[in-house]
Amino acid sequence: MAYPQTTFVFTSLHPKTLLGQRRQAVAANTLQYQLDVLKQTGRYDAFKLRWHPIYDRAPEVWPIPDHLFWDSDIAKWIEGACYFLQQQCMPTIADAVDELVEMIRSAQQPDGYLNIHYTVVEPGKRFTNLKDMHELYNCGHLIEAALAHHALYANNQLLSPICAYVDLLCKTFGPGPEQTHGYPGHPEIELALLRLHERTGLERYLSLARYFITERGNLTGCDGRHYFDVEAEKRGADPNMKPAFYPEPRSLWYHQAQAPIAEQQTIEGHSVRAMYLLTSVADLVRIEKSHADLQDATYRLWNNMVNQKMYSTGGIGAMKQWEGFGLDYFLPQGTSEGGCYSETCAAIGVMMLAQRLLQIDLNGRYTDITELCLYNAVLTAMSTDGKKFTYVNQLASSDKDLSKRDDWFTVACCPPNMLRLLGTIGGYIWTYKSTVAEKCAYVDVHLYIGAKLTFDCGKDIVELEQETDWPSSGDVKFRLRSQRIKVELRLRVPGWADTWKITPECPDLVVKQGYLTIPSSWLEQHPDFTLSIPLKPRILVSHPLTNQNTVTIARGPVVYCVEDLDNPWVQDHFASTLLNPACEITEKLVQNQSLGDSYIALTVTRGASLLDTEAFEETPFLRQHGVDKFRPLSKLDFVPYYFRANRGGRGHMRVGLKRAT
Amino acid sequence: MAYPQTTFVFTSLHPKTLLGQRRQAVAANTLQYQLDVLKQTGRYDAFKLRWHPIYDRAPEVWPIPDHLFWDSDIAKWIEGACYFLQQQCMPTIADAVDELVEMIRSAQQPDGYLNIHYTVVEPGKRFTNLKDMHELYNCGHLIEAALAHHALYANNQLLSPICAYVDLLCKTFGPGPEQTHGYPGHPEIELALLRLHERTGLERYLSLARYFITERGNLTGCDGRHYFDVEAEKRGADPNMKPAFYPEPRSLWYHQAQAPIAEQQTIEGHSVRAMYLLTSVADLVRIEKSHADLQDATYRLWNNMVNQKMYSTGGIGAMKQWEGFGLDYFLPQGTSEGGCYSETCAAIGVMMLAQRLLQIDLNGRYTDITELCLYNAVLTAMSTDGKKFTYVNQLASSDKDLSKRDDWFTVACCPPNMLRLLGTIGGYIWTYKSTVAEKCAYVDVHLYIGAKLTFDCGKDIVELEQETDWPSSGDVKFRLRSQRIKVELRLRVPGWADTWKITPECPDLVVKQGYLTIPSSWLEQHPDFTLSIPLKPRILVSHPLTNQNTVTIARGPVVYCVEDLDNPWVQDHFASTLLNPACEITEKLVQNQSLGDSYIALTVTRGASLLDTEAFEETPFLRQHGVDKFRPLSKLDFVPYYFRANRGGRGHMRVGLKRAT
Repeated sequence: MAYPQTTFVFTSLHPKTLLGQRRQAVAANTLQYQLDVLKQTGRYDAFKLRWHPIYDRAPEVWPIPDHLFWDSDIAKWIEGACYFLQQQCMPTIADAVDELVEMIRSAQQPDGYLNIHYTVVEPGKRFTNLKDMHELYNCGHLIEAALAHHALYANNQLLSPICAYVDLLCKTFGPGPEQTHGYPGHPEIELALLRLHERTGLERYLSLARYFITERGNLTGCDGRHYFDVEAEKRGADPNMKPAFYPEPRSLWYHQAQAPIAEQQTIEGHSVRAMYLLTSVADLVRIEKSHADLQDATYRLWNNMVNQKMYSTGGIGAMKQWEGFGLDYFLPQGTSEGGCYSETCAAIGVMMLAQRLLQIDLNGRYTDITELCLYNAVLTAMSTDGKKFTYVNQLASSDKDLSKRDDWFTVACCPPNMLRLLGTIGGYIWTYKSTVAEKCAYVDVHLYIGAKLTFDCGKDIVELEQETDWPSSGDVKFRLRSQRIKVELRLRVPGWADTWKITPECPDLVVKQGYLTIPSSWLEQHPDFTLSIPLKPRILVSHPLTNQNTVTIARGPVVYCVEDLDNPWVQDHFASTLLNPACEITEKLVQNQSLGDSYIALTVTRGASLLDTEAFEETPFLRQHGVDKFRPLSKLDFVPYYFRANRGGRGHMRVGLKRAT
Repeated sequence: MAYPQTTFVFTSLHPKTLLGQRRQAVAANTLQYQLDVLKQTGRYDAFKLRWHPIYDRAPEVWPIPDHLFWDSDIAKWIEGACYFLQQQCMPTIADAVDELVEMIRSAQQPDGYLNIHYTVVEPGKRFTNLKDMHELYNCGHLIEAALAHHALYANNQLLSPICAYVDLLCKTFGPGPEQTHGYPGHPEIELALLRLHERTGLERYLSLARYFITERGNLTGCDGRHYFDVEAEKRGADPNMKPAFYPEPRSLWYHQAQAPIAEQQTIEGHSVRAMYLLTSVADLVRIEKSHADLQDATYRLWNNMVNQKMYSTGGIGAMKQWEGFGLDYFLPQGTSEGGCYSETCAAIGVMMLAQRLLQIDLNGRYTDITELCLYNAVLTAMSTDGKKFTYVNQLASSDKDLSKRDDWFTVACCPPNMLRLLGTIGGYIWTYKSTVAEKCAYVDVHLYIGAKLTFDCGKDIVELEQETDWPSSGDVKFRLRSQRIKVELRLRVPGWADTWKITPECPDLVVKQGYLTIPSSWLEQHPDFTLSIPLKPRILVSHPLTNQNTVTIARGPVVYCVEDLDNPWVQDHFASTLLNPACEITEKLVQNQSLGDSYIALTVTRGASLLDTEAFEETPFLRQHGVDKFRPLSKLDFVPYYFRANRGGRGHMRVGLKRAT
């Protein structure tokens, strides 16, 4: 299996590309910055199992103690650091990894148990609240950290204790009469267990993942009742003690546990949980090739998400209260319009899920979404210098929620998730396989990013390099080198691309499921060639059922936004700015010296206007022609959404503008 | 003061008018039907203070016991019954009123206390949870019942015990060091106390109302803290025991208690509470003429409601979770679009508030809203036969919430509120005053309804009669009779009226604040005259900031809807039906023999179409011109929104249709 966390090591990114630059920011700033924060906040030393004053604090969001995720914060930082250490020497970071691993080892209990909260704060209560308390979620992240550490150092310093903990879980959970018939409220461990199974070859890790996945949502799994109900009753929980993020009592759908996954018809609840869960489901389907019902459900839920519940930026989750999915087509752009959460981790989760689906079925519709998320909902979540982050990625700002980034969060899942994603991004660019028998290798190229892939086919080293300024330019120069082995390439043609061209010409090519197959025979003659996909601004209008009536500009995979810095007259977060779908747009390459980014800026020179809302009647329902009061704007300037909030300004920003009628 | 509950007795409605017919349905069916339900459900006998099995039941909505409002259900039925008994003899109803009054009298405790729950179910806990438990709300409705009973029978059988209870409250609550510095979570008693003050002349009732109003939202009123916080702490409440309808802990704004009323900038929270509260605030302002800050706040909150948070039907409250106000311009039409609550009681509350404001400032903008609510959000809440009701009045149905009415509700505030409103509707039609010194009377005519007003000016009896088929026709024949006294009329010209005409011609008339003043000199010459306001279909388009992009048809005060019964092809609740604001509309008078209603039906003969959603790409954001796929409809039939769901059908209905571009 091509897990990006494993395969990224075979790819080196060109440092001058957009993603190369973001990776440089992480290496230069983010890792050290986050390490400092871990130390300042008490997280760094938490595995020493001493009492910390925060443990006495009433939770910001009952019943979740503020420190509940500290295990995962550490684990995700270790994981991310190990990915970067694979490709760059950073002694301070490496020393911190060593020290943290030692602390984690020292925190392990005699029976293998390994969790800060239930060892220090609530000893004796382990596994009493799988639904809310993130105990198994934390373990999942420890597994992923251990896998990254193991791959980097080729030792078992972290992997051994984690396997010992997982072995305890394998004994504790399962269908046996003495076992607990439970599963985590926040999925994550499932996808980690499947990767642990791949690394170790141990069947019990696959079994536990399968159990967690197939038992989930069983309405009668625990003495004829739902596990979460039985668990709550056992610990004497009052059903009216309802977390603020539960819109109704029980709210099983918040956890994707309202029914067995195979029976779920629509994607519901907390977005990150849903993505981590479905990532593991897709992987289980691939591994076992025997879960047709789960495969159908995964496609059904994916389609519901992409077709009815995804923002133009690839963001998911309209509802702030439960950080998750709303109704079909309910996609308000920001707080002042009724919502928009679009959590960073959720968009990263979409990329993970799409990557797993792509392993089952090579289809550009998954890659299109991967690229959409990457260049928009994900990249917008970190500043150019790698020191500021977002958790929520609204498509429109408001006075209550300005367009900005923050230093850190109490629940700090998103910033270290950027480390993990950018650390392994090389693994998303392409997948390859080689068959020694046929003396042939196949490379599927998913993303166009200046990068070089080098892999060993046993008899030969294959090198494939892309040179491109994507997403500024749509020209990609390929350079293939292999001595004794034939190589076939499949190159993705994005769904939004109107045309494409291979130079020199390669005859008889057709796009099949979003990919062009370039035969090895032609490649032997033309190891250097260029793929050109013209990138030009295109207009997206909202589906009528969204009730949005907006016009969005995209160019290639990049979605654009307007900011007050370029359009300083704005006072209302562009709520009354109109855009005609038939507008005229000009492009300009901007090289921002101080921030180091270069990008294509867009200007609408004809077709933007401003509603004269003050001339309206004051009522939500106007007499005929009451809304046709506007004045033209001589120009309206756009920048990539990922670039927003990097240059100061007053925090006014919007992606979709009202459609001029 | 012209309280409609008092003045309605001077008006008789013509039975053949729309409202006359609804009143006949109430007299013929509703009173008896609701009496039967009160008996079947245990409410009728509840004041006997015996245990009822429902008292053992876990609440449907914690922490509100299902029987908590029974006092008010009984009180509102008595109140409504007394209004109808003023104008019609109904022995069974009258006997039930007598018996209930006796039961209430017998339930009074030695110190005057009078409440079912805190006497039977939780004795000893009275006044420990003013915030949630509706104790004072129930008292408010008992006061209003007592006033209606007193007016009907001119005895104190009910008024005396209620006054004794209120006297206990006057001792219990107030600013004194021994008094409780509290106020009700659900306002109602305030407006009732002001009416009780008017009837009895007793200052202490005015004082208590003033205290409840001005103390509300005091952040430091109780030992330097908010009363609701102190109260919760005293009864040992866990702050995480959060009712399902609280979107966040505390949620003080749900109760309009987040700040003193005078400082509240926007209208928030539970709509019915807000309306009952502001009705009392407006009345206090009128009575005391000394609360400029409260008057400003009332106008400010009214304006916010009407200008940003009111549906085209006069309905308020987009949010189901807290039965109340959402964000400015957030007005989705139904469940499948993200909300719409529009509770019947809230629309009745708007009418009450508008009526109070009209007493401060004669301005048609209040009357326009009164009439809008009456003919749409209110009248739609009862079937033509008076036996079925709605609680929620969405503007669009969905598979989850079909357009229909129900027999009854666990929380049964709305059905008896229809009794109260229709019982006193005559009091909303006009207000009058006479000055004996000047030998002159003034009648302000607010609503055009076939009806006759008769009042005694001391020296003379004045009669004013309207003959009209309003809202089917816009012609209103007036007939004024008075012998020795001059009468001046002020006739409302609705804000939506483009023109108006008096026949015979009355010179030099101008519309001032929505009213025409017809001088007494002209009326002496023309005691019979006609006001004509052409009623024709008009188009309302949604304000761009609503994100609705809808077109609504209204005609006079009546808002129209489409139903599947007239448009049987519909499968999606008209979600994909488009309407061009420049459509052609024809009118037709329909006389429904079986239901007894006649109304103007409308048909769009050109300008309606159907989106071909199946031809769309499956994504919320479409490539340019992706949304311009539709096919014309040869016709689209509309009926008044108030008439919906009376003729069977499949429950598909919609008011605002997507605007064709």
